[in-house]
Amino acid sequence: MVKVIFLGTGSGMPTLKRNVSSIALIFTNSNKLWLWDCGEGTQHQIQKTSLKLSKLEKIFITHLHGDHIFGLPGLLASRGLRGGQGQKEIQVFGPEDLEAYLEETQKITKTYVPYKIEIKIIPKDFSEGIIYEDEDYLIRYAEVIHNFATYAYSIEKKERYRFLVEEAKKCNIPAGPVYGALKRGEKVRLPDGRIFYGSDFIARVEKSKKIVFSGDTIFCKNLINLAKNADLLIHEATFSQQEEDLARRNFHSTTVIAARVAREAEAKLLILTHISPRYSSNNKSGVREKDLLSEAQRIFPQTLLAEDFMEYEV
Amino acid sequence: MVKVIFLGTGSGMPTLKRNVSSIALIFTNSNKLWLWDCGEGTQHQIQKTSLKLSKLEKIFITHLHGDHIFGLPGLLASRGLRGGQGQKEIQVFGPEDLEAYLEETQKITKTYVPYKIEIKIIPKDFSEGIIYEDEDYLIRYAEVIHNFATYAYSIEKKERYRFLVEEAKKCNIPAGPVYGALKRGEKVRLPDGRIFYGSDFIARVEKSKKIVFSGDTIFCKNLINLAKNADLLIHEATFSQQEEDLARRNFHSTTVIAARVAREAEAKLLILTHISPRYSSNNKSGVREKDLLSEAQRIFPQTLLAEDFMEYEV
Repeated sequence: MVKVIFLGTGSGMPTLKRNVSSIALIFTNSNKLWLWDCGEGTQHQIQKTSLKLSKLEKIFITHLHGDHIFGLPGLLASRGLRGGQGQKEIQVFGPEDLEAYLEETQKITKTYVPYKIEIKIIPKDFSEGIIYEDEDYLIRYAEVIHNFATYAYSIEKKERYRFLVEEAKKCNIPAGPVYGALKRGEKVRLPDGRIFYGSDFIARVEKSKKIVFSGDTIFCKNLINLAKNADLLIHEATFSQQEEDLARRNFHSTTVIAARVAREAEAKLLILTHISPRYSSNNKSGVREKDLLSEAQRIFPQTLLAEDFMEYEV
Repeated sequence: MVKVIFLGTGSGMPTLKRNVSSIALIFTNSNKLWLWDCGEGTQHQIQKTSLKLSKLEKIFITHLHGDHIFGLPGLLASRGLRGGQGQKEIQVFGPEDLEAYLEETQKITKTYVPYKIEIKIIPKDFSEGIIYEDEDYLIRYAEVIHNFATYAYSIEKKERYRFLVEEAKKCNIPAGPVYGALKRGEKVRLPDGRIFYGSDFIARVEKSKKIVFSGDTIFCKNLINLAKNADLLIHEATFSQQEEDLARRNFHSTTVIAARVAREAEAKLLILTHISPRYSSNNKSGVREKDLLSEAQRIFPQTLLAEDFMEYEV
């Protein structure tokens, strides 16, 4: 289905090991690329992978803090420089003011982009909803709790069904419009009086899959709902449980909060990201990155700690 | 005097070898850091050196194209995060709209910076002038010719003089106010009728030094004036001489233009920077980076081609 590549797994500012926030979603069949967030240097990270800016179709922004969007103007400009004329349009989804940010930045810097940028703003009046849907995928948003309007996103691959034509034939059901009705799951009465139910002629060939990205947040029930039964929950864990107060003051999660959300949502796997730079070197608490993982695993064993360029297929 | 470290030597968009524009000036005695331009990822480049953001005092922006300033908001934010409270203020110099760019970006992204940012705008009505001066250094700007208001900058270390106190003593000149007058180079008449000239009691102990950075420009006489007798001229050379038309259409210089400016300015050394990504891989002209250097050296032999992290001491 979708491969997740972590492009930036740090919080606030880049370090040599962790860039600021960005997650790539690659559709393994089509090679098309979507992004969640776009911190400074995201285009540089992309250059270190096999990903192609020309394949980039959609960007979903969780919130407008700099470490999540300062890479957006440069990435959009480079996509234009690299691709020449006739490039496909791009869609950027995010909170109010995303449009002002892009417009002001591009106006002042006279950035010319030779393709259309469609900006889709999440409506302020709703704490959850659907922001995008196509034949195969559904993207939902849910407002989370940060010191800035912030949204979590889920991407769901829709279930796929196959019409069991051989079963229909066995029952001597005539091909044509009746097949269509059965495919749509309808109840059908034939001229000979027999009744058939669509559900008997449909087999699920692909299960729904769901990946959820928390954005920046404290413990949030809205997020638990969004992440219900997710195959993968990517949750911020800026701080160690030992710095719970600091996390709360900064409207961020600890490892344990992320693990509790994963447990309550009954997610299959949790990946921690948005790790504070403080754990990469000496700090007075003495906490190291490996400790972060242990803290979460005590509550939710199916947990991984993201690293830049880590890949995970769902 | 000053060490120049090239942080980004590419043009337009980053490549794996060349980041977008930024040049660091390090004052070898004090370790203080100034920057010329600040493309996206400049803070990442700084992390790969021994430079410290906490030592950053001044940033000079040549113009507001994205590849010269998209790294500025993130760098200023990280300086704040890293340094905590009580940090020294910073000065940012540049063209009109620099203030709007920083204000809009910081407002929309709610970036809090715990130190003062003093923005100094180059007055629109002058094509050259002094934008900063202290006891030791003088920074001049000169408008150059690009498709955007763009300025070249020079940094000049002032000459230093020593008062030859032992000579004054030999002449039995009484210490006190007369010494002061001689230090200032004045003519002095003593009560006994003798006349002395300050110039006889002053020795130059340090020559003036000058480094000039062109910004983005085509051939420009204003720049030649600014760069007169420079110890180091850093000149953009986006294109090969073989793509002269392309250079002209994009208001950029070729290698040969950079070399002609260096020759006419009688600079001691020329370093080419702002190299187009097209020369890092196959392109139809077949020109490679080493060819760029040869093109310039045929006209101005004392030429180097900048690379990211190259250092040069003046």
